Formats: sequence, structure tokens, C-alpha cells
Amino acid sequence: MSALEAIKYSRGKLEVLDQLRLPHEHHYDEVSTSEEAFDCIKAMRVRGAPAIAIVAALAASVELHNGSCTATGTEDVIKYIDSRLDYLYESRPTAVDLGNAVRLLKKIVRGVKTEGLTDAEAKEAIIKAFIEASEEILAKDLKTNKSIGAFGAKWLQEQYKITDDSKITVMTHCNTGSLATSGHGTALGIIRTLRDEGLLRHAYCTETRPYNQGSRLTAFELVHEGIPATLVTDSMAAALFRLRKAEENIAAVIVGADRVVRNGDTANKIGTYQLAVLAKHHGIKFMVAAPTTSIDVDTETGDDIEIEQRKREELTQISGAVVNADGSIDTSKSVRVAIADQRIGVWNPGFDVTPHEYIDAIVTEKGTVVKGEDGKFHFEDLMPERFQ
Amino acid sequence: MSALEAIKYSRGKLEVLDQLRLPHEHHYDEVSTSEEAFDCIKAMRVRGAPAIAIVAALAASVELHNGSCTATGTEDVIKYIDSRLDYLYESRPTAVDLGNAVRLLKKIVRGVKTEGLTDAEAKEAIIKAFIEASEEILAKDLKTNKSIGAFGAKWLQEQYKITDDSKITVMTHCNTGSLATSGHGTALGIIRTLRDEGLLRHAYCTETRPYNQGSRLTAFELVHEGIPATLVTDSMAAALFRLRKAEENIAAVIVGADRVVRNGDTANKIGTYQLAVLAKHHGIKFMVAAPTTSIDVDTETGDDIEIEQRKREELTQISGAVVNADGSIDTSKSVRVAIADQRIGVWNPGFDVTPHEYIDAIVTEKGTVVKGEDGKFHFEDLMPERFQ
Repeated sequence: MSALEAIKYSRGKLEVLDQLRLPHEHHYDEVSTSEEAFDCIKAMRVRGAPAIAIVAALAASVELHNGSCTATGTEDVIKYIDSRLDYLYESRPTAVDLGNAVRLLKKIVRGVKTEGLTDAEAKEAIIKAFIEASEEILAKDLKTNKSIGAFGAKWLQEQYKITDDSKITVMTHCNTGSLATSGHGTALGIIRTLRDEGLLRHAYCTETRPYNQGSRLTAFELVHEGIPATLVTDSMAAALFRLRKAEENIAAVIVGADRVVRNGDTANKIGTYQLAVLAKHHGIKFMVAAPTTSIDVDTETGDDIEIEQRKREELTQISGAVVNADGSIDTSKSVRVAIADQRIGVWNPGFDVTPHEYIDAIVTEKGTVVKGEDGKFHFEDLMPERFQ
Repeated sequence: MSALEAIKYSRGKLEVLDQLRLPHEHHYDEVSTSEEAFDCIKAMRVRGAPAIAIVAALAASVELHNGSCTATGTEDVIKYIDSRLDYLYESRPTAVDLGNAVRLLKKIVRGVKTEGLTDAEAKEAIIKAFIEASEEILAKDLKTNKSIGAFGAKWLQEQYKITDDSKITVMTHCNTGSLATSGHGTALGIIRTLRDEGLLRHAYCTETRPYNQGSRLTAFELVHEGIPATLVTDSMAAALFRLRKAEENIAAVIVGADRVVRNGDTANKIGTYQLAVLAKHHGIKFMVAAPTTSIDVDTETGDDIEIEQRKREELTQISGAVVNADGSIDTSKSVRVAIADQRIGVWNPGFDVTPHEYIDAIVTEKGTVVKGEDGKFHFEDLMPERFQ
């Protein structure tokens, strides 16, 4: 089966799958300005740290390609590009990939040699460099995901010496698959690779309340790719571990990351920390799959990560395709319903931070990192250039 | 504010609040036969172990009062009543209160002295005894809940020496309030009493996926009674404990029980075990509130409790009142929507078992029980009559 495509791009044109309409509708939004990308990210029509960065960079590329920049002269063109990037950054300040992409693109445009060029030539050169760098982010992401899948599967194989008779069962949270990335996925990429290598017995995905990325997106991807899988509510993880760990060889919980900081503390979708505590309690490995672009070596610990509070309606209301009286689904008709007393107070953090104590391995495209003797993760060996 | 009434009863007439339509609609179903009670319980229009037992007993009383029994003669009348009770029992075999009510009523009808009576007189006496015993179950339940509230609040007060400056915050799961009982509630009864006694700072209720009893019912009750409260998803408990325990003095998770067995292992709504593990991990007390009728001394450990698997659609679909485009709620229009890929495999246990290791106190109407030196709960002192 073909993998899902969340992002369709050719120079000058960007289309983004509206993930809020999944799994019932496959609708692509054309995203041709930074404003459209901002809305797309803010409304969570696209999500996943890598995909957000790609959409932001490519949307800015599309609008630049289509002549949005009326400034002239190196300095003013760069000032214009900076303003677009700063604006896009605000759509999801917790996603470190986006911040990294913004910094990278700012550096790229500043590195363009414009001496001796006319204003028009300089502008063209800067925009060309910006677009090529954005396209490179997209291309690199797919390669990165395949590497994460391979390193993650390899690490699990080393831990468990998996044979045909001892295939492992894993759980994942939120959506980290093709829909969150350019393809293959991070945490779900490891699950894909496990399956491809004949090491996977079964995959469990949590609903991932309140936004149901697990039931809407991950379940959809798992079904789409024919991976043997079961959906559970977030509240069932512990009971599942207790009742089925031995029978099904539940070996690992594998999640993605919005941001991994210097000591390994990891910000990810709300509910991740809870799964990490429960995995540890039940003797199940807890793995974070994240490209090195999601690793923020400038932030020392998770205590320094700001957690975004989201709207109350995300808990008290939900949208879906109408179920007819005969049980059939009317995919053309999406309705929003109230599922709680609308007057109740709501706490709705978008993310939580899992302290590194609970994490057994952080899998990147450059390799798998485990804790040192001091109980902390060290990324120096993996990416010495960022520790200079 | 007046407390909610889930059950309205006068001899010969029973009305039961349809809790599936809450919080948007207040609709009472007239329940006048065992079949209607069975449907009502099976479809979860009424829920909560005590309320289920009360509805079953009163529905049988109403149909008997209204002449459903065409049998004559002591033996055949009892046989008829037995058949109705056996049928009702099957509506929710895991709810021990229902089993206890069935056993009690069977014993009651067998205890009626019919010697020297005509067949008609004997039948009348048996039915009268049945009805009176059913009404007694209702009356006792309210008294029981008030006692549980008092004992639970007292135990917490002893543990924490609560003052005006150190009011406590608690969390509850599922719905154990007026809607699950004849009134006041069990776990929510303790919260009500804490509030009444000025000991409560704040209450958190979990959504309680997949049936959302927390967001639909508990949130509604908390708002209705003006108790300061916040709704969270089941996935947020650990993050809440980690981030807010100190600041808000989060002192206890208080839950109800479908069944407590001899050693204290407790079957309750799915997600309870998970909260117990998380409470222990974060140094928060975990309390079970249960009338002694929910304690099953004939079952040694939780391993012997059968867990009901429920329908996949409970996870993949949800009903609610339509939210209009302007954000207003159309309470007259309930719609069912699909919120997950309908093809995904689903694991949907209705309950889980929390081993006694994780439970700090079991609060009954006769007092609060804590573990003995052997690490197990002993109910002998509380109800010696059931240990003879």
C-alpha cells in the first residue's frame, strides 16, 4: 500500500492534507501564503513538529516564488523574509523544528553573496537560496525518518533478541507517522520498520485525547498500511500492560517529541509523561523518536519549557462524521457535538514534559542515545558540532 | 442548590433519568417492567452500582404491584419472582450490588410466612414483602451515602489536619454522585461532604473515556452544586499531579467501586487502576468509596473478577448535542459522530481491577478500613456477620 502524503509540493505550489477531516475525508488545502500556513498550523490542520516546520518553510517559499516580496536591496529583502519567518514562528512556538528551520533560513539568506549584483539580482539570489534550503528541509526529513526507523528497530532487536517466536508488541501515542512528517514517520516509523523486518507482533495506539490524533490519524495510518493494530483509550494503558504484557510481549512505548532538551527531558503531546510513568512501573521500555532537529541543546532541562494552554472547547466538544441511524457513516457530513457540561472549568495543556529519568532511549537519525552513568542523556557524541 | 435525582419513585411508579442525554437534556424514562429496567441498565441510561440495584429492584416491584405475576401458590409465585430477578441480574453481572439485591430479595420472599393463607393471600403477602424490601434498599442507600461522605472526610481530615489555609484538592474518576446512587453519592459524596465542611479547595474530574461519565455527569453535578471544579482528560492526571500537587495541595484520588473483593482488590471503571498507580507514584492517597453492599467477601482476589468487554463503537463513535456554527449548543439535537477510523481493532474493557497494594483506604458506611500489617484489607471487624 502506498504511504500517506500529508504534504504535496512542487516549486510554487504547496498543498497540505487537512488532518482535522481525517479519517473520513481526504481534503487538501492549497497553502500559498505565510498567513495560510499560520492558520493551518494554529488550527492543527497540519501537525507534528517536522511537518509544521516543512509547511512553514515551503509556504514562505511559495509566496516568495510568487512575488510576495516588494522590497528591494539585500537588507530590505532579508528584513522582509525575517518578518515572515518571525510571524510563522508564532504559530507554534513550542515546536523546536520550526524554530530551527527559522534560524537556518535566516542564516541561509544572510550567507548569500550579493556583492556586485544589482538589487534585482540580489533579491533573486536570496529568494532562490531560501527556496532551495526549504526544499532541502523536505528532502532531508524523509531520509531522517527512514534512519530513525532503522536505528529504533535495531535497538529493540538488541534489547530483546527478537525471533519469529518472540515478536514484540509496542504502543504509541499521538501521531508521528507519515501525517506528522514528510513520510514514514518517527515513532511510527520505528513501528513501520519493525513490521517490515518481521519483528512486530502488534501495535497499540492510544486515542490521545483531547485531540484524538491517535484514533483519527494513527489508527487510520495503521489500518491503511495493514499493520496489526488495536486502539485503546488513554485510560487503558496501565490495565493493558498489567493484563497483556506477558501474553503479547509488550516491549516498548514509542513516542515522538515536540522538543528534547539538553538533558533528555522531552516535551511531547499531553499524556506522554503518564505513559512513561506507567511503562516504567510495568517494566516496559520507553523510547522517544526524534530527529536531531528536535533536540534543543540550548535549553538545559524540561523545567524551562513553556507549556501552551489550549482552548476549553477541545475537551468539551468534538467533531466527527455523522453516524446514521443504521450505523453507516456519512463522510460528507461533519458535525461538532458537545460532550461535556459546557460550564465546567477546564485544564488543557497541549503538551507535557517527561523527565529523562523515565526515558530509556532517544532514537535519532544519527543513532540511538541511552543514558550515561550519570543518568542523563548526552548528545555530544551524536552532534559534536552543536556543542562547540 | 437542590441535589440531582436520578431515580423518582412512588409505589407503582418508577421514573429513571436518562443519563445518556445529560448534560444537555433532562429526560425521565418511565420504567415499569423488568424488561425496561434491563434495557435501561444495559444501555447505561442508568449507571452506578447502587443505582442499578435500586432500579432493578424497584422495576420488579412496580411490575409486581401492577399485576405482572399470573402465577398462584407460594412456590410458583417465588419461581416467577426468581425468574425476573435472574433475568435482571444478567443486565450487569459485574455489579455486585445488583447481585446482593437479587440474593436479598430472593431470601425475603422465601421468608414470608404463608402457612394458613389462601393462595391469593400468600401471593399478596409475598409481593408486599418484595416491594417493601425494595423500597428499603432505596431508603438505606441515601443514608449509606451520607455516612460514607462523613467517614471519608473524617479520614482525610485525620491524615492531613486540614485547616482553612490548607484545604485539599482531590480528583475523582467516573461518576459516583447523585446520578449513580439514590443521592449524595459515594466518592462524590465524600467530595460533597468535604465542601460542606469547608475542607475542599478544588475538585478535578477526569473525562472517563470511553463513556465520558466524568465530563457528561460528574462535571454536570459539580457545576450544578457549585463545587469549584476542573475537568481534565484521563491522559492529564500524571501531568497535573506533577505540576500542581504542591501548589494546590492535591491530597487524594477518590473513586467508587463496582466490586471490592475480600482482600481489598477493587473492580471499577476502566482507568481506575491507572490513576491508582499514578497517585502512588506521586505520593497522593488513593481512596475507594463503597457501601458494604459492594464488598464481595466470597471472592478472594481481583484475579477472580471477570471483566466485561464492551462494544467497539464506544471508542470509535460518540454522541452529543449539536454545536452550531456560532458556538451555541442545540440541546434538542443529539447526533452521533465517528471519531476514529471505523476499521481499527478496539480493546474496550468496561472495568479494571486495582490491586489492594495501591489503595490506601476503603470508605464504607460503617467506617473507613485501612490495610493491616499484612498489607491486606480486613473487613471482618466492619461486618463480622458476613465472616461467620
